[in-house]
Amino acid sequence: MSTPKAFDDFYSVIPAGGIGSRLWPLSRADAPKFLHDLTGSGQTLLRDTWDRLAPLSGADRIMVVTGRAHRAAVEEQLPELADPNVVLESEPKDSSAAIGLAAAILLQREPGVIVGSFAADHVIRDKRGFRRAVGEGIAAARAGFIATIGITPTEPAVGFGYIHCGEPLAIEGAPNAVGAQSFVEKPSLAVAERYLADGDYLWNGGMFIARADVLLTQLGKSQPELLAGLTELAEAWDTPRRGAVVDRVWPRLTKIAIDYSVAEPAAAEGKLVVIPGDFDWDDVGDFASIAKLHSGGRKSDLAILGENARVLADASTGVVISQSGRLISLIGVTDIVVVDTPDALLVTTTANAQRVKAVVDNLKLSGRNDVL
Amino acid sequence: MSTPKAFDDFYSVIPAGGIGSRLWPLSRADAPKFLHDLTGSGQTLLRDTWDRLAPLSGADRIMVVTGRAHRAAVEEQLPELADPNVVLESEPKDSSAAIGLAAAILLQREPGVIVGSFAADHVIRDKRGFRRAVGEGIAAARAGFIATIGITPTEPAVGFGYIHCGEPLAIEGAPNAVGAQSFVEKPSLAVAERYLADGDYLWNGGMFIARADVLLTQLGKSQPELLAGLTELAEAWDTPRRGAVVDRVWPRLTKIAIDYSVAEPAAAEGKLVVIPGDFDWDDVGDFASIAKLHSGGRKSDLAILGENARVLADASTGVVISQSGRLISLIGVTDIVVVDTPDALLVTTTANAQRVKAVVDNLKLSGRNDVL
Repeated sequence: MSTPKAFDDFYSVIPAGGIGSRLWPLSRADAPKFLHDLTGSGQTLLRDTWDRLAPLSGADRIMVVTGRAHRAAVEEQLPELADPNVVLESEPKDSSAAIGLAAAILLQREPGVIVGSFAADHVIRDKRGFRRAVGEGIAAARAGFIATIGITPTEPAVGFGYIHCGEPLAIEGAPNAVGAQSFVEKPSLAVAERYLADGDYLWNGGMFIARADVLLTQLGKSQPELLAGLTELAEAWDTPRRGAVVDRVWPRLTKIAIDYSVAEPAAAEGKLVVIPGDFDWDDVGDFASIAKLHSGGRKSDLAILGENARVLADASTGVVISQSGRLISLIGVTDIVVVDTPDALLVTTTANAQRVKAVVDNLKLSGRNDVL
Repeated sequence: MSTPKAFDDFYSVIPAGGIGSRLWPLSRADAPKFLHDLTGSGQTLLRDTWDRLAPLSGADRIMVVTGRAHRAAVEEQLPELADPNVVLESEPKDSSAAIGLAAAILLQREPGVIVGSFAADHVIRDKRGFRRAVGEGIAAARAGFIATIGITPTEPAVGFGYIHCGEPLAIEGAPNAVGAQSFVEKPSLAVAERYLADGDYLWNGGMFIARADVLLTQLGKSQPELLAGLTELAEAWDTPRRGAVVDRVWPRLTKIAIDYSVAEPAAAEGKLVVIPGDFDWDDVGDFASIAKLHSGGRKSDLAILGENARVLADASTGVVISQSGRLISLIGVTDIVVVDTPDALLVTTTANAQRVKAVVDNLKLSGRNDVL
């Protein structure tokens, strides 16, 4: 089976892992963030991601890495997803293992393949801008670089990491590529304001594009044991030995984010290039982000999400997410966040949205897994 | 049957009528305010009221006036309530009809009886102070006055009506009785502060004590048709004609509050006396009042009501009322009001508590009787 595609040597990888703790009680272990429609598009973030990538790699060249528990839900969302393109994790091992295993399996199958990794739960509406940036990333990957897409900031966000960009590079097919000086963690507001004014700092969108062999070689420099494990898994993957090797190797894989194992070391070596992305992007990391997405930036709006939501609001702003079908009445509450699910209710404000994770941690500690 | 009682000639009347719209969605047509435990006492306001009155009139001399729909719930709360002491309204006709009918029925049965009317849904914890005030009211009633109990204000409340008191009166057994100059409606904050400083203004607690014949004569002066209807009902009440007379007369009764039909005219004629009550009192009129009752006046508290309430709160104050059994998580919301019922959720603030009634009116207008 083959479908129309823009880039013959390109394979999309979608790691569909994180639960999205800051979106509790909407996001749960059994209903992670990527399985929700948070944009009002009428489909899940995972499906949105798929639809963005299918025209680039072809729908038959998209690999999804997800937990065993989510297999059925993922396949329901993505009926076109072929069996060889499903990689099931027996337990979460962070992004280096997820993306690295996908790259290693694809490299076994197709020497020279270029892989691009895109989170299952981010929001990008400008498909044309996205396609242009990915195209430049693929060109840079063909030239032997590891490419990442950095998003041009529109505000001094403190919830995202940043990439400090360097000089323009002369790469054929990637006219906007620049070097990457360093990655920086979520900054304070003062620092974020300086980054915004400076212009050399882009948001780290967590999108990586590279030849599979280049990516794995870079990973092996900082994580040789992890690479060995992934290589062993990949060699057995398309054989009857897969199950036995997974059982033996998977539990011992090192848990580390790909930012640390690949991106930062590559930047230090001058092997990482940044493709500036001028498209809209959001990682929908918390309820404040959802409120902002739905209000178009206006503070005066009340965003309402949820099928059959019944909301009666008076002098109220913020966001209501309704999953219970109950009548929800708001009176005189501003920047409020109300998340109404059948077994748990959250009431907070957009300013406190980042603190939701602490509640989830608290529930975990007290063994309240029934609502997690 | 007879029970211990303090006052032989005294009969308690409990009008159990109002739904308590400002307490929606807790209070409903089928679960009015008086059927809730709003104080954390472990029993309903109606039962609290009964327990306060039984030692004064005797439990066999308490008449309850309520809607037909609430008969079963009332009898469940008050197993001691004898059939002749249940007066069922076929439709609500306001307090003049409810209290007037009780007085008229009791006057038929017992000439010279003194009736005292006490709302089913107010909170009074100081039983001794209450008993003292009722005792003085009964003494004033024996002397031919209509007595009301005025509550000494503890703050410049804008949610209560006030009684402007006059000169002390020399009534045997009622050493604290004073004349009533006038009744005033809920004041502005500035006016309430002046009342508090003045000292001559007491809260109108809506408690009236009078000889049944005196009360009815006063009612007849301003509302002769209403009195005629009530007299016709009372004469038929303990006969087989009751049903037919109710069907014919009840629908035509004038709807008017007893404050307007009896209390204000009596005050103007010098026939109303006020017994100052130094006990605690609250009409629990809205959720701000509930928050206050439970916090002991401290603004820093979060009051939690509801059996099996599961609340996880961080940096939050106000009141949570849980009827759904769901986990409720609050983060960084202050002076919040969250009322969680199986089919409706309210989120507001204590400052907006009075606006809840507008939501209920809105729901009525839009025909959403399923949640009213």
